[in-house]
Amino acid sequence: MRHIISILLQNEAGALARVSALFSSRGYNIESLSVAPTEHVELSRVTLVTIGSDEVIEQIINQLGKLVDVVKIADMTQSDHIERELLLIKLRVDKAKALRLVELIDAGEVHVLDNTAENYTLELNGTTEEVDEFITHVSACAEILAVVRSGAMAISKGERSLGDR
Amino acid sequence: MRHIISILLQNEAGALARVSALFSSRGYNIESLSVAPTEHVELSRVTLVTIGSDEVIEQIINQLGKLVDVVKIADMTQSDHIERELLLIKLRVDKAKALRLVELIDAGEVHVLDNTAENYTLELNGTTEEVDEFITHVSACAEILAVVRSGAMAISKGERSLGDR
Repeated sequence: MRHIISILLQNEAGALARVSALFSSRGYNIESLSVAPTEHVELSRVTLVTIGSDEVIEQIINQLGKLVDVVKIADMTQSDHIERELLLIKLRVDKAKALRLVELIDAGEVHVLDNTAENYTLELNGTTEEVDEFITHVSACAEILAVVRSGAMAISKGERSLGDR
Repeated sequence: MRHIISILLQNEAGALARVSALFSSRGYNIESLSVAPTEHVELSRVTLVTIGSDEVIEQIINQLGKLVDVVKIADMTQSDHIERELLLIKLRVDKAKALRLVELIDAGEVHVLDNTAENYTLELNGTTEEVDEFITHVSACAEILAVVRSGAMAISKGERSLGDR
């Protein structure tokens, strides 16, 4: 089972290393992770995706919660949330299939960032599933030169937010 | 000086912990980081932002390049690149200022993800500078309840890509 975990983390040297080391020392894998500043200068927010049974994830969350740098932590997949991911992708386009690529670009909310004679660099936002699907579709009509993904990012629906918990 | 470093990393347990530990053990700070799978099942791509002089950054890159998990590494800020970041932000809207918020939403390429009586959850893509600016503008007409950022992600312009280097 795939879980998205959000963490408010103190901006202390080594905080990210401690979070990621906890995963590797327990043999848990991090599928994706993003961390960046928040509106509070002393806090960063981490979103990470990991795979495991509900019991294992609960253990991980308990152990993460004991780290001094962790201010708040929640399994976003346990409640109503919105999941979004950013994809940057560079493609070399086979001329015979260029029309198909243009159709894919027009069909989705895809933004062309850069465009040379043979290469396209595209930007797309979506759920992880939508991003995976887009990559599968474009790989049928273009050679993939680079994939840069943010990993899933999650925010609670409605009135709640991580800081309240 | 702000540098964006891109890394192709083997999907080995502890690879992210080793990269982040190298920063903290040297006293270097990671401003933001994102890591997610690529089109190659054995590789993830990390984009991280750090601040330091060119000499210090060169040292960091040399040391990172010695980690067994690191397949390719580049300072993206040394050459022509595109920088994009995803912001998810939840706001509580002061009714007297709601019109100003709607103007801000209409002026930029902002996507409304969720919308209750008093709260808006918005999505925006831009450079880090554009995201910072948007947060400053909205904070003047709404209370910020949550900020989730991917951190800057970078991709080379033109024909080149990180895998070629």
